Amino acid sequence: MKKKILIMGGDGFCGWPTSLGLSNDGCDVTIVDNLSRRKIDIDLECDSLTPIESITKRLQVWKDISGKKISYYNIDIACEYQKLLDLIITISPDVIIHFAEQRSAPYSMKNSNLKRYTVNNNTNATHNVLCSIVESGLDIHLVHLGTMGVYGYGTADLKIPEGYLNVQVDVEGELKNLDILYPANPGSIYHMTKTTDALMFAYYNKNDNVRITDLHQGIVWGTNTVETKMAPELVNRFDYDGDYGTVLNRFLMQAAIEHPLTVYGTGKQTRAFIHINDTVNCIRLAITNAPDHSERVQIYNQMTETHTLINLANIVAKLTGAEIRYYHNPRKEDTENTLMVQNDSLISLGLEPITLENGLLSEVYDIAKKYQSRCDEEKIICKSLWNREYKVDLKGSEKPV
Amino acid sequence: MKKKILIMGGDGFCGWPTSLGLSNDGCDVTIVDNLSRRKIDIDLECDSLTPIESITKRLQVWKDISGKKISYYNIDIACEYQKLLDLIITISPDVIIHFAEQRSAPYSMKNSNLKRYTVNNNTNATHNVLCSIVESGLDIHLVHLGTMGVYGYGTADLKIPEGYLNVQVDVEGELKNLDILYPANPGSIYHMTKTTDALMFAYYNKNDNVRITDLHQGIVWGTNTVETKMAPELVNRFDYDGDYGTVLNRFLMQAAIEHPLTVYGTGKQTRAFIHINDTVNCIRLAITNAPDHSERVQIYNQMTETHTLINLANIVAKLTGAEIRYYHNPRKEDTENTLMVQNDSLISLGLEPITLENGLLSEVYDIAKKYQSRCDEEKIICKSLWNREYKVDLKGSEKPV
Repeated sequence: MKKKILIMGGDGFCGWPTSLGLSNDGCDVTIVDNLSRRKIDIDLECDSLTPIESITKRLQVWKDISGKKISYYNIDIACEYQKLLDLIITISPDVIIHFAEQRSAPYSMKNSNLKRYTVNNNTNATHNVLCSIVESGLDIHLVHLGTMGVYGYGTADLKIPEGYLNVQVDVEGELKNLDILYPANPGSIYHMTKTTDALMFAYYNKNDNVRITDLHQGIVWGTNTVETKMAPELVNRFDYDGDYGTVLNRFLMQAAIEHPLTVYGTGKQTRAFIHINDTVNCIRLAITNAPDHSERVQIYNQMTETHTLINLANIVAKLTGAEIRYYHNPRKEDTENTLMVQNDSLISLGLEPITLENGLLSEVYDIAKKYQSRCDEEKIICKSLWNREYKVDLKGSEKPV
Repeated sequence: MKKKILIMGGDGFCGWPTSLGLSNDGCDVTIVDNLSRRKIDIDLECDSLTPIESITKRLQVWKDISGKKISYYNIDIACEYQKLLDLIITISPDVIIHFAEQRSAPYSMKNSNLKRYTVNNNTNATHNVLCSIVESGLDIHLVHLGTMGVYGYGTADLKIPEGYLNVQVDVEGELKNLDILYPANPGSIYHMTKTTDALMFAYYNKNDNVRITDLHQGIVWGTNTVETKMAPELVNRFDYDGDYGTVLNRFLMQAAIEHPLTVYGTGKQTRAFIHINDTVNCIRLAITNAPDHSERVQIYNQMTETHTLINLANIVAKLTGAEIRYYHNPRKEDTENTLMVQNDSLISLGLEPITLENGLLSEVYDIAKKYQSRCDEEKIICKSLWNREYKVDLKGSEKPV
């Protein structure tokens, strides 16, 4: 693949391995990142469990090892529109991949300032990318990282389709078919911003024929990819804290430091998952299968399996001998839900899923073990609350409360 | 009615008559406005056809005439969150009415800066109001002025319901009923912001039980209400320009100065309409019929009749002898559409519609005649274009192009 690719948020958890993966494929990759994720860690007084290098060092090591150059620009795309537009016109990319959003649900619920930061940052980042593509006059394919969380879990028996829902409407006694964007049902301010993103994509696609692929991703687990394993300085970030840590990685890290596995609520909530290697592979597939100008926004469900949280905890407990503890759920959500998801599109394009059974759980566990001395145990429990009726639970119990 | 009411955008075209109307009813009204609408006129080098007074003068005259005090704060609610929150806590209103958004579709399409301004301003204004209501801990009913434009005109034979659409979904061969937010289909960046507003309302209602009424309003015509007629200094603004002028008012003004009536496209586009007096009456009804905490967002269609643009032009031509001219349509929209709208809710609550037949057309025409010397004819033609394929048409023709 020899495409020119601009990666917004290319220093982050999904952005970094994607940047390396596409560079390794032979693409001409440019990263745009304002390093906000690293700065948020400073505010949270927390850090990646893995010791990540500065972006400049990362890119230098990558060049030394692979012979491939990735350029980097520190631009806040939510605020610095002219810089963004100038860069797009200068580079004239075939593809823009947009990861540049605040992506933690608990962080987005912490307080009014962070709710407002998340809405302002994510909305303006997405809109500025769309607006600049149109203003540039260039024919750019936009690939956006969305979330399975846009769907909510409202329709228990329905297998969640890929972005669109076929419904029937009674028009004067006659049933008519409509193909609509799946009704949004976000579970946090963060997820809400992805549902408003979806309306902006639909609009720019309709009005300006912008070619867009929106990837509704499950919860990512794993940390390293083929490329990030090539040198210690290329290691991907690993978040274990109550705000940014994703559940399976958190469990594996908790096991590594002999902390009880933190199950919030009943544990009977079902979630969709994907391994970080597959994230990169899905984005490869999205790029090589761009929609036409006449097509609506292409939406794929980027996930490979579903599990209940308690099922995951049991798997990790079995693997590591860890204890399970139940905490008050800080999220406003159903105590349990089923979740069935269509993911035929990416599979049919060639994705070969890495599932939990592929043995990579121990790889994550080993990394957590290796860096366990870097863990601050104070940061493990989620202290964000969904509304004023909820309370922080620091102790947990042996059974769901 | 003796409620404490905070009116965001209370200096604008709908906000001003609403503020006076509710003050006259006996409510304790406070206006918040950053006067952005007046400042936009400065940029557009245009002005209200009616000579409007400064907000301070307006309020002084109102106090002199009615003996009623309306307080005023100059706050940019999209930017000055802390001021907004402090004011809400200090005043502790029963109701917040939120008009504080950029409300012109053509203005929102003029260029990248104005697209971005509209998205940033409207999104943050709405989100800040929601966020501050939750942070204040107060039980406030939020009334928002939305637009019929959220629905689009996609489903030709369907009578547009009030906010929600009942659909049937095939779940494993069995048809299940779902009541969903009507699928968004906005026709401009401005309309798009009202569809993203709707998702924020749904979220804050679900997560924090905020009581919300969203009024999807048609195109407003007329200029004065009972209260704005009480003194010349209380006159409402009257926009006639290609960006902010609403169609029926524009036609009446064009007739008054013997300019041809500007029909963009075929004129067979159908729109929903409401008189400014009814805007105020609908808001009264929304306030006195607030939803409970357990209810979803209450959505009413705030319109009283539909007309094609050419039908309106013919009515005005007949009334005034004006000539009709057709111009290239700057909007990306169907060349013609039918539009059937449910508006039972507000009618059943007591709204008695003022329709075109009520004779108020000549009142608007008389006002336009009276102030015709203030008109800048250069500002009449719409120069905003929906995308790069469209072109400005200054001449028009006798038949649709």
